[in-house]
Amino acid sequence: MDRVERMFSTHPAPASDAGEEAFALVQAAAECTYCCTTCADACLEEDDPANLRKCIRLNLDCAEICSVTAKMIARPGAQDRNVLRAQLEACAAACRACADECDSHAGKHDHCGICAECCRACAEACERMKKALVA
Amino acid sequence: MDRVERMFSTHPAPASDAGEEAFALVQAAAECTYCCTTCADACLEEDDPANLRKCIRLNLDCAEICSVTAKMIARPGAQDRNVLRAQLEACAAACRACADECDSHAGKHDHCGICAECCRACAEACERMKKALVA
Amino acid sequence: MDRVERMFSTHPAPASDAGEEAFALVQAAAECTYCCTTCADACLEEDDPANLRKCIRLNLDCAEICSVTAKMIARPGAQDRNVLRAQLEACAAACRACADECDSHAGKHDHCGICAECCRACAEACERMKKALVA
Amino acid sequence: MDRVERMFSTHPAPASDAGEEAFALVQAAAECTYCCTTCADACLEEDDPANLRKCIRLNLDCAEICSVTAKMIARPGAQDRNVLRAQLEACAAACRACADECDSHAGKHDHCGICAECCRACAEACERMKKALVA
Repeated sequence: MDRVERMFSTHPAPASDAGEEAFALVQAAAECTYCCTTCADACLEEDDPANLRKCIRLNLDCAEICSVTAKMIARPGAQDRNVLRAQLEACAAACRACADECDSHAGKHDHCGICAECCRACAEACERMKKALVA
Repeated sequence: MDRVERMFSTHPAPASDAGEEAFALVQAAAECTYCCTTCADACLEEDDPANLRKCIRLNLDCAEICSVTAKMIARPGAQDRNVLRAQLEACAAACRACADECDSHAGKHDHCGICAECCRACAEACERMKKALVA
Repeated sequence: MDRVERMFSTHPAPASDAGEEAFALVQAAAECTYCCTTCADACLEEDDPANLRKCIRLNLDCAEICSVTAKMIARPGAQDRNVLRAQLEACAAACRACADECDSHAGKHDHCGICAECCRACAEACERMKKALVA
Repeated sequence: MDRVERMFSTHPAPASDAGEEAFALVQAAAECTYCCTTCADACLEEDDPANLRKCIRLNLDCAEICSVTAKMIARPGAQDRNVLRAQLEACAAACRACADECDSHAGKHDHCGICAECCRACAEACERMKKALVA
């Protein structure tokens, strides 16, 4: 994602000073999008997909919400702060719910453990971005 | 979208009784996704795209958030209520912000007027869904 | 989706004369996006999700490809014909593969039958759009 | 994206031996999704967005197509080869078209130069994946 960082530095009019938090969030939300996507697919392939229904659904929701967060943050021009804040709330909620569910399967499925880690990192990046927006 | 309605009625285990509100929201959020997408493209094609920057950005954000809302609601199986509620908040916020911005250009650009109408309808469908979830 | 049709008629500079085929495709691709999304969720909820893995995966692929097709077509300004044609090919391929797989479960699961119908309608709308682009 | 790589190695039944090409493509397509998203936003913010209409549209198309490619590849379970190949064709076509357009503005706008580089890298990753699928 090095080129994304260079893209940020060439934007003619970024709306906020939170460039560092923003790039960290794009990275975390992109990673979480694909971890959740792979986790859903891996869960589906396990012997017991019926026991992983809740995990698969949360993975799919979380992947989609994270994907939108990353795209919104990757538009550094004048953003609507209310909309951005509400999106960060939704993203952090999805990441926390998915992390909790994945954690409960981590003992049995390694992919769920890694995915939980990734979701918590993205939830934290959302919280840091929310704080940076207030500043 | 008739087939989507039939799909809902064949789902083996919908999580909520809010089937009517859910289908209305899928319709409203899908319509809003494409109205906002077309509005962004039409704004870009106008003589004065530099005056419509804010509108184009909100159109893009709103299209993406609505698209995720429609997909989440189109998964009627057991949903995480907290995540769904946070998504409905983000969606209603995006729709209202986009409607306000579009309204301010409606006198000059017909597509902005129609888009504002569509965004307000989707915000209302989100509010009705939120109420149905509590019940 | 009535407002999407009105949006098309207010666009300042649509690139093609294929307005009718374009609106039909936005409708078909949007419907297919949500039918496939609901079908994946319904399959996951059945007693035998392990037997429906292939169907769930094709549903997810098809939903995402259709969603992008609908968004590209909902930008009626000057489009790159090569890119659009390649996307229509990918979309028709995904719809046909998903329809074939869904058909094989239609006797057992009504949602698969409706979804197959929806996928074939979208594949046809893609073919009609491809022809309209050549004309 | 280190966690995505670890996710791949914990998947219970990856469909292909092309794990290396697959992970490289997820990385390239994710990077391209966000480079194109930022490029569209930066173009819109320039003094002359009306001269960058074609670039903005191709950026938006390319971002969405790359995003779907990355998600499909991040589902390593049994994939439909025909659908995957058609998606790789569409993705490579979008990346090449966007790279050509961005290159034509690279002398004036640094973000277009970086974005072109990123699009070409993703087109190449698509081609390598297509070859790996045949093997």
